[in-house]
Amino acid sequence: MPALKDTQNERDDRRLPIDRVGIKNLRFPICVRDRDANPQHTVGTVSMAVDLPHHFKGTHMSRFVEVLHAHGRELTVADVAAIPQELQKRLAADKAHLEIRFPWFRVKKAPVTQAEGMLDYGIIFEVNADGAELDFVVTVEAPVTTLCPCSKAISRHGAHNQRGLVTFSVRFHQPVWIEEMIEMVESAASSGLYSLLKRPDEKHVTEAAYENPVFVEDLVRNVALKARAHPRVRWFRVEAENFESIHNHNAWAVIESGPA
Amino acid sequence: MPALKDTQNERDDRRLPIDRVGIKNLRFPICVRDRDANPQHTVGTVSMAVDLPHHFKGTHMSRFVEVLHAHGRELTVADVAAIPQELQKRLAADKAHLEIRFPWFRVKKAPVTQAEGMLDYGIIFEVNADGAELDFVVTVEAPVTTLCPCSKAISRHGAHNQRGLVTFSVRFHQPVWIEEMIEMVESAASSGLYSLLKRPDEKHVTEAAYENPVFVEDLVRNVALKARAHPRVRWFRVEAENFESIHNHNAWAVIESGPA
Amino acid sequence: MPALKDTQNERDDRRLPIDRVGIKNLRFPICVRDRDANPQHTVGTVSMAVDLPHHFKGTHMSRFVEVLHAHGRELTVADVAAIPQELQKRLAADKAHLEIRFPWFRVKKAPVTQAEGMLDYGIIFEVNADGAELDFVVTVEAPVTTLCPCSKAISRHGAHNQRGLVTFSVRFHQPVWIEEMIEMVESAASSGLYSLLKRPDEKHVTEAAYENPVFVEDLVRNVALKARAHPRVRWFRVEAENFESIHNHNAWAVIESGPA
Amino acid sequence: MPALKDTQNERDDRRLPIDRVGIKNLRFPICVRDRDANPQHTVGTVSMAVDLPHHFKGTHMSRFVEVLHAHGRELTVADVAAIPQELQKRLAADKAHLEIRFPWFRVKKAPVTQAEGMLDYGIIFEVNADGAELDFVVTVEAPVTTLCPCSKAISRHGAHNQRGLVTFSVRFHQPVWIEEMIEMVESAASSGLYSLLKRPDEKHVTEAAYENPVFVEDLVRNVALKARAHPRVRWFRVEAENFESIHNHNAWAVIESGPA
Repeated sequence: MPALKDTQNERDDRRLPIDRVGIKNLRFPICVRDRDANPQHTVGTVSMAVDLPHHFKGTHMSRFVEVLHAHGRELTVADVAAIPQELQKRLAADKAHLEIRFPWFRVKKAPVTQAEGMLDYGIIFEVNADGAELDFVVTVEAPVTTLCPCSKAISRHGAHNQRGLVTFSVRFHQPVWIEEMIEMVESAASSGLYSLLKRPDEKHVTEAAYENPVFVEDLVRNVALKARAHPRVRWFRVEAENFESIHNHNAWAVIESGPA
Repeated sequence: MPALKDTQNERDDRRLPIDRVGIKNLRFPICVRDRDANPQHTVGTVSMAVDLPHHFKGTHMSRFVEVLHAHGRELTVADVAAIPQELQKRLAADKAHLEIRFPWFRVKKAPVTQAEGMLDYGIIFEVNADGAELDFVVTVEAPVTTLCPCSKAISRHGAHNQRGLVTFSVRFHQPVWIEEMIEMVESAASSGLYSLLKRPDEKHVTEAAYENPVFVEDLVRNVALKARAHPRVRWFRVEAENFESIHNHNAWAVIESGPA
Repeated sequence: MPALKDTQNERDDRRLPIDRVGIKNLRFPICVRDRDANPQHTVGTVSMAVDLPHHFKGTHMSRFVEVLHAHGRELTVADVAAIPQELQKRLAADKAHLEIRFPWFRVKKAPVTQAEGMLDYGIIFEVNADGAELDFVVTVEAPVTTLCPCSKAISRHGAHNQRGLVTFSVRFHQPVWIEEMIEMVESAASSGLYSLLKRPDEKHVTEAAYENPVFVEDLVRNVALKARAHPRVRWFRVEAENFESIHNHNAWAVIESGPA
Repeated sequence: MPALKDTQNERDDRRLPIDRVGIKNLRFPICVRDRDANPQHTVGTVSMAVDLPHHFKGTHMSRFVEVLHAHGRELTVADVAAIPQELQKRLAADKAHLEIRFPWFRVKKAPVTQAEGMLDYGIIFEVNADGAELDFVVTVEAPVTTLCPCSKAISRHGAHNQRGLVTFSVRFHQPVWIEEMIEMVESAASSGLYSLLKRPDEKHVTEAAYENPVFVEDLVRNVALKARAHPRVRWFRVEAENFESIHNHNAWAVIESGPA
């Protein structure tokens, strides 16, 4: 077979470098070890990109997929960390980017009966390579309960409460465990969530939330205080969104530490 | 220009009629009048289909869009009701189907201060024509507050509560207003929602919800009782989903009246 | 501690049985074996429900989660099939329902270079128990390429083509493999999709699609013919949706075999 | 009635200012005038926020909704531009932020038959006030057809093509019309999309796309060239995503001009 034309490799003369070009929304199995070294199998959604100098017409999209598949049928965290540098080499790029999002599970015991259930969180790993420099950001999306301090203070009884979602990202000096990040978030809320609660547990979490009201502002500040005090965290961003039980819109707050 | 080949019109010999064929997910402006005859402009997402006898290779997709556009740049409810019969004629079909979904707004006054705010609901109109028969289903998606009776009964203070979504569909003898359907749902819940609540209002809805706890089961039963008692409703289906503030999963219940 | 009040167990006198009540949108790990008996770990989204007689105020939501967790930290297909009967027993219900949706991967070789890549599909298992009867429905959501026969027939060169999604459900006499269902769909389209295609492969799939144009109507008929001819399939429904490359709406068709 | 406690107004001593606090995901009607001064009614999804100094415990969420509702039952573009400054005043904030997203329609004539159809786009207005400075960003999400140059070059006949989505944002010296932005995007692609195409039109767009292949890289470069040459644009960002017809993942590219 004669060689097929390599259109991507042609010269481009628009003199416009491209910041990011690659693939998005590719699903791939992933295996993550937890703090106790147990493997957890889950499914990631991957995007990858490189920069493209102005004189090339296109990148080679299939190479992104080859680099991904070169690690076998399941990615590990080590693979995720290595891929941007492999992309730099394989695609002769200065910069490379990988993002992978996946659901992640943690066994939680109910607070009174100690009944075990699994709770799901969202995790995002983002790795950027720029020349020899690597930048790693870990994000945890953790659901929580928030109970409104104002509603409690002004009402004869009860207080509106709701599910909230905290999106907490860190850059670090030394790795921080997903479990640590989750604990920082759950202890900052009115209560953590559980998949399995028997009646004594439901009594416990109802009362605990009532005794520990937090605004969305308190929630992000509480997480920020913990992040600032953590010896291995060097940058953070925390965003909280409350799916208000009395409104059809959400309350929302963000704190970001200094520059990355 | 010579005639272009009409591939769709060719004979098919697989002897397989098609139940539904058409277009989906087309956005189009719509105008709906409320109970006070005020027009409300909003945006619909439309699907349309016809059946296709076994001997035709394909339908003519552009005719669906022509039938829709024949009504001008904004659909009315009368247009929506007429389109299935126009599709039957235009596409020589026995059966035709139209579904349109759109957000819809209602001015609500806060319960104490009477401050006005607008709350958004989801509406679905579904119209099916089969020969000379027309079937019309109206669905309202209304957000509400639910407060858990069990959590209240067992806890020293407080009770978990959350936003819920009720999906309420009816077929009718004589038309039922969207506003009536919304009122049937909101009065069945622990509280309705509001976009604008000042502190005295927040106190009111917090206390009202605490005094009116409902399980997801109560919610669908309360709506079902109202639907059964309504003189113009001849069929209904009510589904409720609570975005539990203490779990990361939802509670869910459904009641459907007898056959349509 | 004194017994906590069991509100759910109270008598209800609205005389309204509930068709379905339970939980929705709970994520849980799952393990599925493929045709070669290799285990595949993935993540499911679960809903479960039972019917509720008119005289009970509520169901016991935590029991759904207990039944699920009784199978350990990862569900298998055997667990999925057994759960509805366990729900009937545990919740004293006549009817029980389980639905689990999950992404699923299959290694596919590129058609010319034989380069291996993994492609993702969506799978849904639905199991309904009614008294002693069990009903099992398996659904595959498979992405494909469709190339328009009309566009090809009327144009000097080229033809519009696009990604489509086929949702193919079966009930069966004897189990049908997910892989078989995928093959029935992919062979009914202009081409199957691949995650990894080198240039000779891209040439191959481009030409193959051009030589094998299908309307959305052809696609559902082709799958229906295969389903009808399959000795183990006793009921099917096939729906196809094309994300038209020349429109911002989709083309759509459905065929369902006789009653389930 | 005695005054209700104003919890939000209490002093906070965590010494943590909040970057953004407000509301999210509130739906509200909006009216936008097109280039010919015709009003277009549509539905927006709004988020609003302010910064919060470290010494305040919370913001007053209801004031965001009051500021929004003060403009009546439908927002105009002038309202959208004014709201951040109103938020600064009403909430005594240094910074304020408004984002509103809405579908928007444009009448397009089919290229040969001149048949009229309406095509939908996504629009985002983002307005940030910082002290006396206002920053306005307009984004258009425009769907297009892309046909792969590589697939065309290597294949005997045909070429894979697909729907793509271009997200094009600008800051400007003097206002730029939404219509201008859409034209910059559609003329940069293999073809624009249409809701209504008769057979002669379908022949035209099929052939035009085949004769005008673009990679995702070409698409963002073509838009970037037009943006750079536009006298009223002072900053831009263009991102394109192709829903590849031969893959189940997307191709993706981004160019951003210098700093805002």
